[in-house]
Amino acid sequence: MSRLKLYFDTLSQPSRSLLIFLEANKISYEPKLVRLGKGEQNTPEFLKLNPLHQVPIIDDNGFVLRESVGILRYLCREKNVADHWYPKDSKRQAKVDEYLEWQHLGTRLGCGMYFRIMWLEPLVTGRTPDLKDIQRCKTQMTNACDIIENHWLKNKFICGDEISIADVLAAAELEQPRLAGYDPREGRPKLAEFMARVREATNPAYDEAHKIINAVVEKSKGQSPEKEKKSG
Amino acid sequence: MSRLKLYFDTLSQPSRSLLIFLEANKISYEPKLVRLGKGEQNTPEFLKLNPLHQVPIIDDNGFVLRESVGILRYLCREKNVADHWYPKDSKRQAKVDEYLEWQHLGTRLGCGMYFRIMWLEPLVTGRTPDLKDIQRCKTQMTNACDIIENHWLKNKFICGDEISIADVLAAAELEQPRLAGYDPREGRPKLAEFMARVREATNPAYDEAHKIINAVVEKSKGQSPEKEKKSG
Repeated sequence: MSRLKLYFDTLSQPSRSLLIFLEANKISYEPKLVRLGKGEQNTPEFLKLNPLHQVPIIDDNGFVLRESVGILRYLCREKNVADHWYPKDSKRQAKVDEYLEWQHLGTRLGCGMYFRIMWLEPLVTGRTPDLKDIQRCKTQMTNACDIIENHWLKNKFICGDEISIADVLAAAELEQPRLAGYDPREGRPKLAEFMARVREATNPAYDEAHKIINAVVEKSKGQSPEKEKKSG
Repeated sequence: MSRLKLYFDTLSQPSRSLLIFLEANKISYEPKLVRLGKGEQNTPEFLKLNPLHQVPIIDDNGFVLRESVGILRYLCREKNVADHWYPKDSKRQAKVDEYLEWQHLGTRLGCGMYFRIMWLEPLVTGRTPDLKDIQRCKTQMTNACDIIENHWLKNKFICGDEISIADVLAAAELEQPRLAGYDPREGRPKLAEFMARVREATNPAYDEAHKIINAVVEKSKGQSPEKEKKSG
């Protein structure tokens, strides 16, 4: 049994990034599913690992680490991983860090909040989201997607012509709003090609991590719970 | 003349973190003030350095780097800096990263948005902020401050008993909402002691970086433009 445990749920974007990274790099790990929909992030047992109720986390032979971006950096240092994932060269590493730090208030906030307002909260509370909240979140999200299209994608991948941890984080975020009926690829050709490239470079891990999401999108035909309610 | 240039404005929290870090470590740099209030982040000359209109950025002998958290990591690798600022030991470094990644959607979003809604936007647009927006931002901010008080501050500093780059980032964020009439130290004894400790460990750099902010707070006696308008 591996001594690296991964606590995750594939409904969480950063969890999917980590799953894809571990699988694509053939790093052995013990999967520990934390079903967010069943509130398993709130159990006393889980809170001992992360009092902030969040996945993903890892337990590497007793060393517990939270925050996906920090976990990805740690795994690149500790495990047998090709240099292009997170270059050791100081300046090239800094350029990957530039994206990793931007994305929190970029795609992470934009796509994550839209998903939450349009899909998760209506599902959990049964309430219709406020029109102003929808507008605010949609603007944040589309701005972030436009910045990916127009600023970050100068090459095949975000930090050059080889894949890095920046790319698996970006792609997993950009898949999320599809659950709420918004596909960032539409009208953004560079972003669409980029996502196809990340998928190709990491498959079958990419499709496996997005299996549940793709099934939900297929079932709802891209309608968010909010849209379904209005039309139903 | 130093070959490291820092583009900054002390009204920006991450700019102040960098200034404090550079001064406290006696790293020689050429200061380049970008007056955000005068829109200097939108000039064609600045946009060549950062098309995303943001400060701080550095130009290290021709290598341009954006995003304060990535810049701090880069400077710790490249310059003569004591190990406690960003430990080379993989696990200790990962624990500093854990905070650095949390803070984006924690204090950075919470304190930054409150400042923006309550102080910056009313000042620029003359409009009164929406009550629901105020409430949303205040909840985000107070949650983030409570998490600092109850979760991160188990020791003298965020990642142990020695100061790290996590601490200068945290303190500069926590100073920001004072401009909008909210002091995170009130009712949070550990946070208050922590901020005093960061100030003491980095002074005179800390006071110098906060000179303009302190003057504005003193002049307005902690009233945000919004509060001033109501009472005036």
